[in-house]
Amino acid sequence: MEVKLKKPILDLNNRFAQENQELMQRQGIYVLDLLASPGAGKTSLILATIEALRSTWRIAVIEGDIASDVDAVKIKEAGIPAVQINTGGACHLEAAMIARALHSLDLDNLDLIIIENVGNLVCPTDFYLGEDAKAMILSVPEGHDKPLKYPGVFQVAQAVVLNKVDTMPLFNFDESAFRQSVAQLNPHGVLFSLSATTQEGVRAWAQWLSDQIEEKKSCNS
Amino acid sequence: MEVKLKKPILDLNNRFAQENQELMQRQGIYVLDLLASPGAGKTSLILATIEALRSTWRIAVIEGDIASDVDAVKIKEAGIPAVQINTGGACHLEAAMIARALHSLDLDNLDLIIIENVGNLVCPTDFYLGEDAKAMILSVPEGHDKPLKYPGVFQVAQAVVLNKVDTMPLFNFDESAFRQSVAQLNPHGVLFSLSATTQEGVRAWAQWLSDQIEEKKSCNS
Repeated sequence: MEVKLKKPILDLNNRFAQENQELMQRQGIYVLDLLASPGAGKTSLILATIEALRSTWRIAVIEGDIASDVDAVKIKEAGIPAVQINTGGACHLEAAMIARALHSLDLDNLDLIIIENVGNLVCPTDFYLGEDAKAMILSVPEGHDKPLKYPGVFQVAQAVVLNKVDTMPLFNFDESAFRQSVAQLNPHGVLFSLSATTQEGVRAWAQWLSDQIEEKKSCNS
Repeated sequence: MEVKLKKPILDLNNRFAQENQELMQRQGIYVLDLLASPGAGKTSLILATIEALRSTWRIAVIEGDIASDVDAVKIKEAGIPAVQINTGGACHLEAAMIARALHSLDLDNLDLIIIENVGNLVCPTDFYLGEDAKAMILSVPEGHDKPLKYPGVFQVAQAVVLNKVDTMPLFNFDESAFRQSVAQLNPHGVLFSLSATTQEGVRAWAQWLSDQIEEKKSCNS
């Protein structure tokens, strides 16, 4: 029953996603859809990315959560426009929700929108929101075997971020096994190892993202 | 569309769940459905629980994963019967899957079945599998704000386990704020703080589970 319905639901989603994509193309705004489990460090990485890029690019954040606005509050405290979407139970964002959020942002004064999707390694994978890229975070405490258990999200991400590498000594995390699994699932993706808390490795990630924005802008002009 | 279909899907699920529940009642087997994010420590806690209870109770494990059988292999290595369910993309187990798994276990020689659900704080919440109780794990690295963001799973769990407490010094985890949120969402639930790795606090958790099994058996006889 669910399987039969998946296609029409995704078709409808894709119509909204296409409109989002066209609007962002006209505006020259790069959109990143960030996926991860609860607590992997999505908000922390967004805050570290804001610090690294705010002098170069104008940034806004769309926060997706089942409930609460604690993440949007943190982003706004950093002086960055943020829109909170509460899905009211749904385990992923959909393109129609993003369309509404986009209309509440000052699109003429933005270069980058980061979408923090609902904390979930499964549901958001299939939903195209109109973004330029999906990126995903796995944190060291979650364990190196997660690509085997959640292959889909590792396959759709253009960039995979291994976060909390400062806690590596505390957890039995086999980084080489992890890299090998990711490379097999996603041979064209890029992989960053970093700690959003200690800032170690954040610069390389921020540079990659900045290059993507630059490239979209140069193709647009 | 999804909303309209949720009810019939859940009704169908509940029919299977009811059959599972009746079968487990006849057999006098206690069934625990264990929920958590990827990497929170479900398999580690199951292994620690097996060690604590294997001299008292006969245990089997049903492993739910999107893909792979790495967890079932770990359980079998501990000398415990394990059935792997691969959901092939679905982010939760359903009662019909459990019904099939139960038929491959030697039910006449079991006291406890632990179901390790798919790593997800959202999807498995609504699905009754015929279990006696749901328990959930939050691990310290995920952060103390998770009850605010994923209230549903904290509400349905009869027992909430805070895992990886040995890593508390490394993470900015406000245990009293966490306890307060959990108590608000779930005033009748029990909360255990433990580390499946160092074994700290595992005994109290295992004792609680053992008492539940004892109680079911005494009501049955």
